[in-house]
Amino acid sequence: MASKSLDGLLVAETKNMQYFTGFSGGSMLLVPLEGENILFVYGVNYEAAKVEVKEASVDLVKPQEDLIKKIVEEMGDLKIRTVGFDSLKASTYLKFKESSDKITLKSADDLIWTLRKVKDPLEISLMKKAAELTSRGMRKAAEIIKPGLTERDVAAEIEYEMRKAGSDGVAFDTIVSSGSNSAFPHGGCGDRVIRKGDLVVIDIGAKHMGYCSDLTRTFIIGDPSPRQIQIYETVREAQNLAVKKTQAEVKASEVDHAARYYISKAGYGDYFVHSLGHGVGLDVHELPTLNPKSKDVLAEGNVVTIEPGIYIPGFGGVRIEDTVLVLRDGVEKLTEAPTEMEF
Amino acid sequence: MASKSLDGLLVAETKNMQYFTGFSGGSMLLVPLEGENILFVYGVNYEAAKVEVKEASVDLVKPQEDLIKKIVEEMGDLKIRTVGFDSLKASTYLKFKESSDKITLKSADDLIWTLRKVKDPLEISLMKKAAELTSRGMRKAAEIIKPGLTERDVAAEIEYEMRKAGSDGVAFDTIVSSGSNSAFPHGGCGDRVIRKGDLVVIDIGAKHMGYCSDLTRTFIIGDPSPRQIQIYETVREAQNLAVKKTQAEVKASEVDHAARYYISKAGYGDYFVHSLGHGVGLDVHELPTLNPKSKDVLAEGNVVTIEPGIYIPGFGGVRIEDTVLVLRDGVEKLTEAPTEMEF
Repeated sequence: MASKSLDGLLVAETKNMQYFTGFSGGSMLLVPLEGENILFVYGVNYEAAKVEVKEASVDLVKPQEDLIKKIVEEMGDLKIRTVGFDSLKASTYLKFKESSDKITLKSADDLIWTLRKVKDPLEISLMKKAAELTSRGMRKAAEIIKPGLTERDVAAEIEYEMRKAGSDGVAFDTIVSSGSNSAFPHGGCGDRVIRKGDLVVIDIGAKHMGYCSDLTRTFIIGDPSPRQIQIYETVREAQNLAVKKTQAEVKASEVDHAARYYISKAGYGDYFVHSLGHGVGLDVHELPTLNPKSKDVLAEGNVVTIEPGIYIPGFGGVRIEDTVLVLRDGVEKLTEAPTEMEF
Repeated sequence: MASKSLDGLLVAETKNMQYFTGFSGGSMLLVPLEGENILFVYGVNYEAAKVEVKEASVDLVKPQEDLIKKIVEEMGDLKIRTVGFDSLKASTYLKFKESSDKITLKSADDLIWTLRKVKDPLEISLMKKAAELTSRGMRKAAEIIKPGLTERDVAAEIEYEMRKAGSDGVAFDTIVSSGSNSAFPHGGCGDRVIRKGDLVVIDIGAKHMGYCSDLTRTFIIGDPSPRQIQIYETVREAQNLAVKKTQAEVKASEVDHAARYYISKAGYGDYFVHSLGHGVGLDVHELPTLNPKSKDVLAEGNVVTIEPGIYIPGFGGVRIEDTVLVLRDGVEKLTEAPTEMEF
């Protein structure tokens, strides 16, 4: 904050508040350069806040109070003039500007991400647990998937397995997309009946204490065709190459390139239509970003996905994804599931 | 738009884009006052968009393109000078302002909510299905809940039941909060083992084709104590009174008052720490808002929750909630589950 000439930070994003206070029911968090943090909480979450909030005092916002005005007053008392914000809505931003002409608001999202994208040992242990639960869900998928089930049937069994094993819910809507649906990277999960000859992309994530995980495998139902084998093996090798490239101090764009170059050489460059990967943490999509335009440089303690894919409209798609912890000289794979096709 | 002197609308909220185009993978939607809507979509969702998007042309955002600049150019071509926005991030708002000094941005969220808060027949049928799935989950809960299960065990069975019956996932994180946890309105769902004498608040929602539902029941495990009975019956009667009050052209604040006044008279006013209810639709929390400060007036086609609660720190809480469709002269309850205590 000091280096950015900020007197304080105004945190509006739920996950950022959770990161700083351990509590997800706050409405806004004020972090003064010096002195105690203040978490503003409405009555509905006040009793829980008193028990759960760490490293902040809890300030009750009463029904007749206006949150913005209350914070502006608090900033006045604390002599905060220049305040960084993380991700205010435009309407909230404008309300702050209307409420006081003494306060200067500056975007400071990057400041928080500098912290959040490097996981500490406690976070890593929580993410390992989330990844373990996710891997378990994928083992279940491998066990039960067969022609005749709907995509939703498969999702139900995976989610049930993860829940029973201790997951706090899903990190994102489970994807089980089969046949031609698998050609859509976010193919969803519906009533389609899985058939012999289908590619089935399964993309799942358990959650543990707020931390997410992200794992994709692609199943080929029945005997794979030569084209399916070629695409599958291309994606698998692209993932291997990208994982091998991943370590601290490597540019994220170079990791992306390792996979993208291989896929392009195999003739499928136009069909790899998304980033190679993204950070994972309290959000399932966070920094750093692994794509050709990324300015991020990987660091020890980043947790990222490596997930190349090839999607042929009308034919189907293959994606293989793991969540990995970036180490000084390589990675530790947090998710675990076979990548060999069984045929 | 014309009445607000807007030449167009810039839609950034995913659910709003979904409302207008049936597709949730867009990055931004431009709605000119005249002419065709344009949905801006990145490569990852482009093929799906071409199949699923209705009532908009699909414009691919290429990896090297800047979304904001692209939209600003498009607005220039269409001679859009004054544009309403729904819920831009402050950083995006500022980027638009930097990209062009010819464009005036005005908040126009209310314009979209005028549409979204009144459900049409198709939306109502989708919401009925979501509610039916939710009611089914609650029946499952009633069937299985017993001492010795953890909160998470119960959540697993409910979610599995809803999924198998056709739910597209959960509308929000399932709440199963037992014992003293039930005193927190958003009590979560963890490892706590349910015991005799517990109050257990179960708050669940299935999803169908993007539409949400919301249902809460409170279970008393074993023989209820006189205090539990008194609190339970107070909440139950408060809900009855509020439901009876609910119909088109009634102020939302009056409906809230019906429940709040009854709870206050019973001596629990300080323990009803949240709004009476909220709209439900593509978002699980949307307009109209039912609380003492609400300016909303109910209208035919609104779908809202009626959910009074009493939460006694250290003792436990009771909440009873249904999702109801507002009719000209009353309501149709979309969710269904007994409210009588069994004792």
